[in-house]
Amino acid sequence: MTTTAVLGTGAIGTAAGSALLRAGYDVVAWNRTPDRAHALVSAGARRAVSAAEAVDVSALVLVAVTDQAALGDVLEALDDLTGTVVVGLCTGTPSQVAMNDRRVRERGGILLGAGVRSSPDAYASGAGSLLVSGPRPSYDEHRAALDLLGDVRWVGEQPQAAATLDLVLFGLWYDAQLGLLRAVGALAAAGVDPAGLVPDLAAQLDHVRADVAPAIDQLRTRSFPRGPADLREHLVLLSSLRGERLLPLGDGGLGPVVERLQELVDAGRGGEGLTALLDA
Amino acid sequence: MTTTAVLGTGAIGTAAGSALLRAGYDVVAWNRTPDRAHALVSAGARRAVSAAEAVDVSALVLVAVTDQAALGDVLEALDDLTGTVVVGLCTGTPSQVAMNDRRVRERGGILLGAGVRSSPDAYASGAGSLLVSGPRPSYDEHRAALDLLGDVRWVGEQPQAAATLDLVLFGLWYDAQLGLLRAVGALAAAGVDPAGLVPDLAAQLDHVRADVAPAIDQLRTRSFPRGPADLREHLVLLSSLRGERLLPLGDGGLGPVVERLQELVDAGRGGEGLTALLDA
Repeated sequence: MTTTAVLGTGAIGTAAGSALLRAGYDVVAWNRTPDRAHALVSAGARRAVSAAEAVDVSALVLVAVTDQAALGDVLEALDDLTGTVVVGLCTGTPSQVAMNDRRVRERGGILLGAGVRSSPDAYASGAGSLLVSGPRPSYDEHRAALDLLGDVRWVGEQPQAAATLDLVLFGLWYDAQLGLLRAVGALAAAGVDPAGLVPDLAAQLDHVRADVAPAIDQLRTRSFPRGPADLREHLVLLSSLRGERLLPLGDGGLGPVVERLQELVDAGRGGEGLTALLDA
Repeated sequence: MTTTAVLGTGAIGTAAGSALLRAGYDVVAWNRTPDRAHALVSAGARRAVSAAEAVDVSALVLVAVTDQAALGDVLEALDDLTGTVVVGLCTGTPSQVAMNDRRVRERGGILLGAGVRSSPDAYASGAGSLLVSGPRPSYDEHRAALDLLGDVRWVGEQPQAAATLDLVLFGLWYDAQLGLLRAVGALAAAGVDPAGLVPDLAAQLDHVRADVAPAIDQLRTRSFPRGPADLREHLVLLSSLRGERLLPLGDGGLGPVVERLQELVDAGRGGEGLTALLDA
């Protein structure tokens, strides 16, 4: 059975290591502050005196430090990762993950990125949710160990794909939520009581929700039916919306959108639908 | 019974006039191209040779021309609107409606703005949906006639409030829909297949939908509980989102949002929730 290193034995590292130990895995634990490895060692892990010692005997290395910056520090202190798959069980931006991917590759290893979405308790009991990304063969090789943590989804070949997905989901929430705040604020400023308008505002979000699958399909097939309006009509509406939007939270960045719409209309694509905005 | 003028006898004007005629109202019709008043005259309306003649005998004036620019032209050609309530049954931006409100007041009349949301057929059969705004006493005075068109909602004292509401609802749709396109585009660019992520993306919109009523209530009561994150945490997330968002549709205008967040955090309000962004 594969020996697994757990570097960083805070809440998440201890939880992940415990799940592996319970399934009979051989686990080697290291923490910068040795005392903090105590819980995992008590549960059956071997203690390493350095990260390098733990990595040397392991084919799978789980790094559960504070964030990708701390992961970078751990990697910088290692000389050789030949033959090991490193899983970064910590948050960070896609560009931070991409930088750590370079560090791992320079040392001969392969990095899998991860989006940590659950509490330590959930991972310890095998009921966590985890996004993983990076080279598929490396994921497949260590899938059995990762599956011990719970519902694990592989989302793409790039190690930074899981972090991108996390950020994208936050981004959609912010775009919609900031839109809601702009809407409610603009109504209040115009002397319109928003309280009676909850169904009207909710209906707009329902329309977008219903468009998630069609929009994905349209981009995949590169066919952009006009839907409720075509690009010429969207251009008129968005231009007037942009001009009237004197809001404390800005205009939602409509400028680049209007410019892109104008380009598409000028290119003779005015009869297509809004999804064509993303067509290269 | 009040004599009602219908200025502009295209589809909407003819539909509105028909609904009033059927209820026994006295209707005077005028159109710039006289032939086009034929349908309404056949249905029982009297024909006026000028807009001024129609307005002179009417307490309620429905203007159903192409848009607020055309309404402005009609108003400029009139000298006196003393004692009349003008309803602008046509689309336009809030600032266009405000300009026409000044024109009506200069002539001694009162303008009600309207958001036209249904087909002519729906209004003709009394099943239309109409937003109306402007001085409440004037709305109440003519409510019985307007109710003949269908479900009529008064939304505020300013004549431009109905147009503002229309624009605000479009704005929320665009903010959320553009957020969806940015999300799907960013996933595709990162090599992540968005098709498997429909439930994840939809869930983000559901969270916002669930926040419509609470957000309205928080702004009304000016209490801003932190919710899923406080302003300090939002600032960190939004700053990193802004930095990583290299998208063809721009960053969603996060710049002013990040600046406003920083102001609130600097003012010691970092423990509050996102709705505080709109607190003056």
